[in-house]
Amino acid sequence: MPDQAHATDQAAAEQLPATGDLRDTTQPTRRATVPALEAMLHTAMPVLDHGFVRVVDYMGDDGAIVQAARVSYGRGTRKVSEDTGLIRYLMRHRHSTPFEMCEIKYHVKLPIFVARQWIRHRMANVNEISARYSILDREFYIPEPQHLAAQSTSNRQGRGDVLEGEAACAVLDLLREDASRCHDHYALMLGEGGSPEAPESGYGLARELARMNLTLNTYTQWYWKADLHNLLGFLSLRLDSHAQYEIRVYAEAMLRSVRAWVPIAAAAFEDYRVGAFTFSASMLAVLRRQLAGEAVTQAQSGLSRREWDEMQAVLAGGDAMTAA
Amino acid sequence: MPDQAHATDQAAAEQLPATGDLRDTTQPTRRATVPALEAMLHTAMPVLDHGFVRVVDYMGDDGAIVQAARVSYGRGTRKVSEDTGLIRYLMRHRHSTPFEMCEIKYHVKLPIFVARQWIRHRMANVNEISARYSILDREFYIPEPQHLAAQSTSNRQGRGDVLEGEAACAVLDLLREDASRCHDHYALMLGEGGSPEAPESGYGLARELARMNLTLNTYTQWYWKADLHNLLGFLSLRLDSHAQYEIRVYAEAMLRSVRAWVPIAAAAFEDYRVGAFTFSASMLAVLRRQLAGEAVTQAQSGLSRREWDEMQAVLAGGDAMTAA
Amino acid sequence: MPDQAHATDQAAAEQLPATGDLRDTTQPTRRATVPALEAMLHTAMPVLDHGFVRVVDYMGDDGAIVQAARVSYGRGTRKVSEDTGLIRYLMRHRHSTPFEMCEIKYHVKLPIFVARQWIRHRMANVNEISARYSILDREFYIPEPQHLAAQSTSNRQGRGDVLEGEAACAVLDLLREDASRCHDHYALMLGEGGSPEAPESGYGLARELARMNLTLNTYTQWYWKADLHNLLGFLSLRLDSHAQYEIRVYAEAMLRSVRAWVPIAAAAFEDYRVGAFTFSASMLAVLRRQLAGEAVTQAQSGLSRREWDEMQAVLAGGDAMTAA
Amino acid sequence: MPDQAHATDQAAAEQLPATGDLRDTTQPTRRATVPALEAMLHTAMPVLDHGFVRVVDYMGDDGAIVQAARVSYGRGTRKVSEDTGLIRYLMRHRHSTPFEMCEIKYHVKLPIFVARQWIRHRMANVNEISARYSILDREFYIPEPQHLAAQSTSNRQGRGDVLEGEAACAVLDLLREDASRCHDHYALMLGEGGSPEAPESGYGLARELARMNLTLNTYTQWYWKADLHNLLGFLSLRLDSHAQYEIRVYAEAMLRSVRAWVPIAAAAFEDYRVGAFTFSASMLAVLRRQLAGEAVTQAQSGLSRREWDEMQAVLAGGDAMTAA
Repeated sequence: MPDQAHATDQAAAEQLPATGDLRDTTQPTRRATVPALEAMLHTAMPVLDHGFVRVVDYMGDDGAIVQAARVSYGRGTRKVSEDTGLIRYLMRHRHSTPFEMCEIKYHVKLPIFVARQWIRHRMANVNEISARYSILDREFYIPEPQHLAAQSTSNRQGRGDVLEGEAACAVLDLLREDASRCHDHYALMLGEGGSPEAPESGYGLARELARMNLTLNTYTQWYWKADLHNLLGFLSLRLDSHAQYEIRVYAEAMLRSVRAWVPIAAAAFEDYRVGAFTFSASMLAVLRRQLAGEAVTQAQSGLSRREWDEMQAVLAGGDAMTAA
Repeated sequence: MPDQAHATDQAAAEQLPATGDLRDTTQPTRRATVPALEAMLHTAMPVLDHGFVRVVDYMGDDGAIVQAARVSYGRGTRKVSEDTGLIRYLMRHRHSTPFEMCEIKYHVKLPIFVARQWIRHRMANVNEISARYSILDREFYIPEPQHLAAQSTSNRQGRGDVLEGEAACAVLDLLREDASRCHDHYALMLGEGGSPEAPESGYGLARELARMNLTLNTYTQWYWKADLHNLLGFLSLRLDSHAQYEIRVYAEAMLRSVRAWVPIAAAAFEDYRVGAFTFSASMLAVLRRQLAGEAVTQAQSGLSRREWDEMQAVLAGGDAMTAA
Repeated sequence: MPDQAHATDQAAAEQLPATGDLRDTTQPTRRATVPALEAMLHTAMPVLDHGFVRVVDYMGDDGAIVQAARVSYGRGTRKVSEDTGLIRYLMRHRHSTPFEMCEIKYHVKLPIFVARQWIRHRMANVNEISARYSILDREFYIPEPQHLAAQSTSNRQGRGDVLEGEAACAVLDLLREDASRCHDHYALMLGEGGSPEAPESGYGLARELARMNLTLNTYTQWYWKADLHNLLGFLSLRLDSHAQYEIRVYAEAMLRSVRAWVPIAAAAFEDYRVGAFTFSASMLAVLRRQLAGEAVTQAQSGLSRREWDEMQAVLAGGDAMTAA
Repeated sequence: MPDQAHATDQAAAEQLPATGDLRDTTQPTRRATVPALEAMLHTAMPVLDHGFVRVVDYMGDDGAIVQAARVSYGRGTRKVSEDTGLIRYLMRHRHSTPFEMCEIKYHVKLPIFVARQWIRHRMANVNEISARYSILDREFYIPEPQHLAAQSTSNRQGRGDVLEGEAACAVLDLLREDASRCHDHYALMLGEGGSPEAPESGYGLARELARMNLTLNTYTQWYWKADLHNLLGFLSLRLDSHAQYEIRVYAEAMLRSVRAWVPIAAAAFEDYRVGAFTFSASMLAVLRRQLAGEAVTQAQSGLSRREWDEMQAVLAGGDAMTAA
């Protein structure tokens, strides 16, 4: 959707100061620099219908992880490991502090209900548009029809089949109409020319009060900055197939930037975290029996039905959570 | 509003497990115990129209602050300070770690737009009702008429005069109708008997999607736990006369619990933080000239107009921010 | 070593205020209370030659974890899970916030070089004896002969065989003599009757300077408070067979208190964290081939030699790190 | 001391990987860049006898603070404040999140007893040389004679007069001899050619054990990374006249880098934090009486003797703490 991307980009450039002009100029620096990430800098990756993720700044690279890990070893142990092996070792053994030496800052536009999930990750720095000061734009997230899922019957927090036909239309109409009406009334309450929709007939209500009339799919924006260790923690939770679709797409856009930025760490992350599975002590005991040729059943395994299903799903090449 | 308090309390007892039965039973403990806070435990303090704050658990007392501070001094310096003097000294000089030895846990019911401000305080532990799993109650915050303020003309984030007459009625109607309609449609989208409002005719939409149709004045609930140092940081910002009224009332309820819990620390906090003002180096220079009898004007002061006004407001016995 | 334990306990009771008198008195409380942990409260568990760990305060229990997890589900999903299953589910899927609702405070006496490792865990509250104010006791950690290990030849950070005979004696003598001499000179520099060792002939040096003459095996003390999630993170690293022995023994004493405090969470932790192993995406691929009956060699596995060895060690019933 | 600086620099370049070669090359970047800080990058500022502070990387500038603050205001309020005024306003009212958008990374060489104070600031990322893996260099901090202070008689944590003559010589000899002997024995215990000092006659003790014989003035090194808000918190405590001299000199070197990096924020910090004083509610009441021409005595003031002295010291143009 190149047009939309462009439009979003435009809007953001208008709304937020001082980034547009950075795009075309470069400065010399003696800091570690990553050309692949430089190429993405300041350019919005479109997400959902009106959202985006844009890398605004960064610090460090794969080399900074190695440098921090090597300070532990000092002189005596310098030549030992080759960088890739070292980064993979750190990731496998959850030695997190070297990854904290890299930092990245994003500018994100996202629906409020997504922002509410996101903000639960506390180890980050955030500056969000305040609706006490500013008037929020008339932009809401309306799902694409193919993402309009029914409640899962097997999984309390999940999605089931896609809604179709009249039901889908009815739901989309309700979402669109309610969000629009709520924003129109928001503008009306603010009144006094505060918005084009209610040029003269408004009530002049304080912004900090009027905002409570907005729906949770209204878009907001923030700067969000985190170190690589905490970013990977965020991604490992939000890339999961059971994360809500509307936040997973942000995580996927961010993963693209991580691959450009720290390719070795990103590959280690995908191997050891995203695609990995942790076997408990009890599961390991079952595994050893199976590898020794024994045919173990759930009843004999000592595992609960749920754990057994998760383990078998993984061994069958699937995803532990799909068994849940 | 005792009836309301009781009703709120009931609702909460219904909704959340395992607290009701703790109210009437006691257990012996060898931990530090504060009778005045025990008396408040598990009882909701009503806030706004449907919200509340309730102390659910705590750890430590004024003595724990002293104990932690004294570990620094060890044997050699034991008898020196009397407890109150020591706690006041720690507060005055922002020695924060001894205050971190006390911990408190609240159960809070609050509108989502207040929750969004609150959660910006990151140094706390939070478990919130998830609308991915649960269906949120049909309860919204509708301001009392006397809190329905116009946008301040002088202060971009503040409130001005109270709206009156028809304007007030119109705004309250809009808030009430929009919140109600949005929740009705939320229930309808969830459908399938998921709510009394739409017993059979719903669309079965996934909860994680349907929630986006709710307005920001819908109530949510959480457990919120923090140490005393971080709680006081939260309170000092949210008790401020320029904090939004709707969060300030929560801070005020929590301050009542802090006074019961750690009376010495609470008094020191109110003297050194809530009622205090920090003079910059430039302001101190002006102050010294004034105390020496010189009549200093803003032009001669080296202070900006804004700083000058803040300083004069404080010296006149007011609040720095009222000058802003 | 009951005598030593008693002596240690005495010394601590002397040195730190206000805990001794709490041991024999109980107060009624309406908070969650854990009798098994109450029984351990205020009593030092001896660790190393002069150290100890003592639980001083706590907040919450297994029920508080469940209560926090259930707030997510609200009314609609109340009866579903039985507590143990829920806690195990939370642990398995690393849902950490409910575990943050429990808090514990320890009083610890430990050598400075152990304190330096320990303090790297940042998500905790600490108040340590300050040698700027206090004079540190003449107590040093001297290893038991069976813990006097040679440098491992295979593992850069590990221990190899135990030193024996003359070498062991020589090392112990050096440690003892150097620590003693340094503390004697510390006392001498402080002088002026500041210590019994140098009653009149000291130099009156500032404490904050004199302390730099102490060796890293000198004992210090602190209060250390953390929530259960962060405590388990600390324990999972420090219980590991490759953690340094001198910190592992502290972790083991703390694990005993966790078992008394939150037995369900502790059991889940030992199954899913302590005894667990995470298979990477590449390892899972190998595992699936092996379970299908294929005989896979390292060369065919796509794993590095190190990863292969770690995986095989685990499948053989051992510890991944012993292969490292 | 240019020679020393150069030598230190050399040693560090040898010991730590990958920084030396960054000094002379530049890369183009589209990130915010600060020429004055670029000029300092990778160059050690000598501190104490063998220590240094060196800026290794950074992210953001004064503009990033403004950008983050302005996201709050959005479109509607764009032109309002001029940058300096806005940054000063943020600093004065302790709006900390915009300052968190800037990040800086230092490489620091410092005595262990200083590292122990420093590490208490938890909101930072740290990677330190590990003496489990590496052998620490034979370098100790020995104070210059003019910093060899006696214990203060009035202030429990402070320094009094400088030691002179024989006492000074004796103390310096003790410090030098004990540190040297402890390091010699450390090398001897490590043995087996692990160090030039004990080429053949060592005992082969594990590094993680041998290190406990070192004195607290032995130098260590780390990478330390923090955001600007937390860095300023560190500096405000450690620049204080009552911070220990040996850490204050590190803070002073870091302040120089902050002035180069974010000159507007640094100036605001020095005015509103370093040179500021907070008057409590009770002090403000006294101040108002004094400004109204009343001669208030301590007895009439309602302040404790200590508070009164602190307040008078500040009003006399001094430092609150000198009265303590």
